[in-house]
Amino acid sequence: MRKLILIVNDDGITAPGIRALAESVIELGDVVVVAPDSAQSGKSNALTIDKNLEINAHDFSVEGVKGFSTSGTPVDCVKLAISKVLDRKPDLLVSGINHGSNHSINVIYSGTMGAATEGTVEGIPSVGFSLLDHSMDADFTVSKKVAKTVAEEILKNGLPQGVSLNVNIPKVDEAEFKGILVCRQSKGHWVDGYEDIEGHDGKTRYMLKGEFKNPDNEEGTDEYALKNGYASVVPTQYDLTAHNFISEIGNWKF
Amino acid sequence: MRKLILIVNDDGITAPGIRALAESVIELGDVVVVAPDSAQSGKSNALTIDKNLEINAHDFSVEGVKGFSTSGTPVDCVKLAISKVLDRKPDLLVSGINHGSNHSINVIYSGTMGAATEGTVEGIPSVGFSLLDHSMDADFTVSKKVAKTVAEEILKNGLPQGVSLNVNIPKVDEAEFKGILVCRQSKGHWVDGYEDIEGHDGKTRYMLKGEFKNPDNEEGTDEYALKNGYASVVPTQYDLTAHNFISEIGNWKF
Repeated sequence: MRKLILIVNDDGITAPGIRALAESVIELGDVVVVAPDSAQSGKSNALTIDKNLEINAHDFSVEGVKGFSTSGTPVDCVKLAISKVLDRKPDLLVSGINHGSNHSINVIYSGTMGAATEGTVEGIPSVGFSLLDHSMDADFTVSKKVAKTVAEEILKNGLPQGVSLNVNIPKVDEAEFKGILVCRQSKGHWVDGYEDIEGHDGKTRYMLKGEFKNPDNEEGTDEYALKNGYASVVPTQYDLTAHNFISEIGNWKF
Repeated sequence: MRKLILIVNDDGITAPGIRALAESVIELGDVVVVAPDSAQSGKSNALTIDKNLEINAHDFSVEGVKGFSTSGTPVDCVKLAISKVLDRKPDLLVSGINHGSNHSINVIYSGTMGAATEGTVEGIPSVGFSLLDHSMDADFTVSKKVAKTVAEEILKNGLPQGVSLNVNIPKVDEAEFKGILVCRQSKGHWVDGYEDIEGHDGKTRYMLKGEFKNPDNEEGTDEYALKNGYASVVPTQYDLTAHNFISEIGNWKF
């Protein structure tokens, strides 16, 4: 039987990045897209527990690919795909290609990786792809090659239960691209501020802005790989237990 | 200087659980509540990047506690508290008390723990509390004692950078309560389904429902603790790297 590949994203079903991803894996199996009908960036693992969700057929712009949009988050898309759209469990879930980075600590806010993690919870080998370019006109040439290579390797080798892959691709052209490095998540993160927005109603509201700070870009981190022209592959897990700290906290007076 | 304690939740600023939490820590320092103005369950680490956010003073119902509501997610509340509400970094962030459980894999969807994780990213010792009772009339007597004990221990011992605590409290009365156990996150999770909802417009929509399955309730897990009348304390981390898998995937053909 041909492999079944589920594609999800967080930028919405009309984003160029998800079309690029479909094009990059179309030769590897039957491809079904189930993606949000609107942008869902920064949605992390959020799921919808208090609203009915819609699924609508969507004429996806890649030959041979079936498309469906949903009114939910990236995680909702995965759950709906499995429960309501697909007739069997996919062999692979690919999420993205995100317009913008999801490396370092930022992975925890990522809807792209939220979808991949949900696939992993459901027992599907899952991977998220993100290009370090927010533009809707971003060049996905390198990203598509990386996505195809990683997807093939997952289909060949599988992934252990509980582990997803978080793949980030640098904004470089093919000549500058160095290859793929397996990494750990660096400790870099956004240091936030808010811009004050004065409303016509006289009230001040606040718009998130921030600056990326990275005190941790040694060799072996995703930050290092990306800074040096490599795509980073970080195996990520949904077991959040800080196992090393369990014995220490065992001495606390509870 | 008196300790500064920030309280956040995901059930919204009017939920009984956040009032119970304020009452349980009021003796430990100056308390400021910054919580969502509406229910934000299942919001995980979601943050708002595309909308202006509001902050409004809220007459919180516990003597001596300053209250503010925001139009954002639990993570937004933490970011806004630090940037716009507080004049110094808090000594402790407590989140909850959630009406409903956040143990096992469910921690990844939790807005309660989303807020605690955000505090940890910001370098604040942070903890989330959840009671295994969804009811708005839940009895928080045991939870309040647990919250106070854990908060005191964190103020005394600190927490390592990158580690939060995820505390769940069983639905038992004081006589049945056994104490507090430090645990790892079990592998239990919700197996989902959707209920078909037929609309007056002739369209079918889907409402999430599910069943909790736990293949992993051995001693040492949060599931085991809670089943046996203990509160569970799981140290959780935002480094999602599956370090054990890095060497294995190093053999893949990239």
